[in-house]
Amino acid sequence: MDTTPDQRPQILLHDPTLRDGHHAVSHQLDADQLRVYATAANAAGVPVVEVGHGNGLGASSLQIGRARLDDATMLTTVREALTSSRMGVFMAPGWGTSDDLAAAVHHGADVVRIAAHCTEADVTERHLGVTRDLGAEAQGVLLMSHMASPGKLAEQCALMAEFGAQAVGIMDSAGRYLPTEVTERVRAIAAAVDVPVIFHGHNNLGLAVANSLAAVDAGASVLDATARGFGAGAGNTQMEVLVAVLERRDVATGISLRKILAAADVATERLMKAPPSIDSIAVASGLAGVFSGFKRPVLQSARAEGVDPIDLFLALGERQVVAGQEDLIGDVARQLKAAAR
Amino acid sequence: MDTTPDQRPQILLHDPTLRDGHHAVSHQLDADQLRVYATAANAAGVPVVEVGHGNGLGASSLQIGRARLDDATMLTTVREALTSSRMGVFMAPGWGTSDDLAAAVHHGADVVRIAAHCTEADVTERHLGVTRDLGAEAQGVLLMSHMASPGKLAEQCALMAEFGAQAVGIMDSAGRYLPTEVTERVRAIAAAVDVPVIFHGHNNLGLAVANSLAAVDAGASVLDATARGFGAGAGNTQMEVLVAVLERRDVATGISLRKILAAADVATERLMKAPPSIDSIAVASGLAGVFSGFKRPVLQSARAEGVDPIDLFLALGERQVVAGQEDLIGDVARQLKAAAR
Repeated sequence: MDTTPDQRPQILLHDPTLRDGHHAVSHQLDADQLRVYATAANAAGVPVVEVGHGNGLGASSLQIGRARLDDATMLTTVREALTSSRMGVFMAPGWGTSDDLAAAVHHGADVVRIAAHCTEADVTERHLGVTRDLGAEAQGVLLMSHMASPGKLAEQCALMAEFGAQAVGIMDSAGRYLPTEVTERVRAIAAAVDVPVIFHGHNNLGLAVANSLAAVDAGASVLDATARGFGAGAGNTQMEVLVAVLERRDVATGISLRKILAAADVATERLMKAPPSIDSIAVASGLAGVFSGFKRPVLQSARAEGVDPIDLFLALGERQVVAGQEDLIGDVARQLKAAAR
Repeated sequence: MDTTPDQRPQILLHDPTLRDGHHAVSHQLDADQLRVYATAANAAGVPVVEVGHGNGLGASSLQIGRARLDDATMLTTVREALTSSRMGVFMAPGWGTSDDLAAAVHHGADVVRIAAHCTEADVTERHLGVTRDLGAEAQGVLLMSHMASPGKLAEQCALMAEFGAQAVGIMDSAGRYLPTEVTERVRAIAAAVDVPVIFHGHNNLGLAVANSLAAVDAGASVLDATARGFGAGAGNTQMEVLVAVLERRDVATGISLRKILAAADVATERLMKAPPSIDSIAVASGLAGVFSGFKRPVLQSARAEGVDPIDLFLALGERQVVAGQEDLIGDVARQLKAAAR
């Protein structure tokens, strides 16, 4: 066996297939599905396997959507399947609480992501501190990050690092970035913090893999990706494709290409109805910079008011609507209908 | 109506949905399918709509696969649907002949692509000349272009320009390129010729859109893309996504985004069984740099010999097997089987 340490640049891949992918199936994965995928990802050498309701700890509810399993069952199931991968969880303050965090770490979570809207890093302070006190690795991520400037994101990431985050970074929640935009943002963040920088892509404009490469070149060292891109709408950065591309770039991930291809096959057969693809709604949503979780209410409002859903997405993008403002969707649809008369 | 000339950089999009996409359905599109998509692409302002058997003029045969319709019927059907788009055809010398070219131009082909393996531009001379004599626009493209160096590709493209090609360029037939590799190749070609440079991407490594952007930045001005990426395996560059991304880049294509999204919806509903996605075979094929048309014989030989198709793809890549060498697939499969004993 070759025990020479790998001298190539190292990137840590973080796998939210069983969390962000949950959005694609209304949070209805069962224990067998969690177990079979976690087992395959663990066998492939995936460093962190994240699990939970799509919106994270404590989010299962009538309003957001009930998960099939409670947090404790999801965590316990995945924990049992992991022998070398660490287990990750995601939490957005407001949906999750300190009690949820304590329970997650009790059930074996090693890595805790605390998420905030891109300009609201201050809300992460308490839970990053709680995570550190619990002895888990604390990370801070900014959602809908295309809505803030590189300087603002750098400032917000530095704040999270001050709060104790051991890695910080940005999510392209709307799938809107071009590679050059990722470059300038990740570069600004990397210059502002001393901890690893995270990039989480979505594929609405077909650029998730390229944006991940741009992030690496700009200084990111943690990339999120999911098996076969499993995720809402156009899906996430496709894990096994990213592993292949990083091999071509001579970047080390510690992941077996052959085994991650097998894990992707497991995910395709067992988790999803069909692999994600970039439909017209996904393109409009990415171009508008609207949170992909808006798809269902947008389609409903468009149908109810008899307006084109693509027009509605673009109008919501112009109004810079963010998660939590779902009530506005119906209002904007009615305005479009009135304007069309 | 705004008649101010568009001052932004201009890119011409060339749409081989009804030719390269044909590979995804064993060349079985019928006249209604050709008509409905050509009508939608024409309405969206697509400059060139290419049509034909996946392997081009004259290729319909028992060995390669019979198309449902003959060349004349395909061309006549699409010609009738186009009021403003030009009609394109593709021909690889050996499969097609000068008679096929003459018939295609007689049936209304405006743009003729003559294709050769990346190091064999000399075979295009006669047919580029015939095309010019027939009064159509002649273009020359190099297949499997990742197998040649930037300098070699520039030399081969310059040769095709000397033969009369009015645009020249490269196809990423295996879907293997990283953006930096496209940059250096297109830059070398653009420096060597005075005609527009063409780039044709495939999405095996999830980089078709990013590679197309890299091509533009390096000097390409003709990009190929298909509706919803319709094409063999992982598919081609996705047209409507590329249009959206070029809009974000402030590059003009003359195509209506709303109407090209509608055309992509037509293609999804009427032409394909399912939108292309990047499965494990496609990743292995791209990484190996093997022509995607090899998928079916590779799967057959792998099954026949009881070897892993991904191993077989990677072994074929190491041997630099090219189209026309299909006989080698079974040999390599038997070698893998023997080596595994």
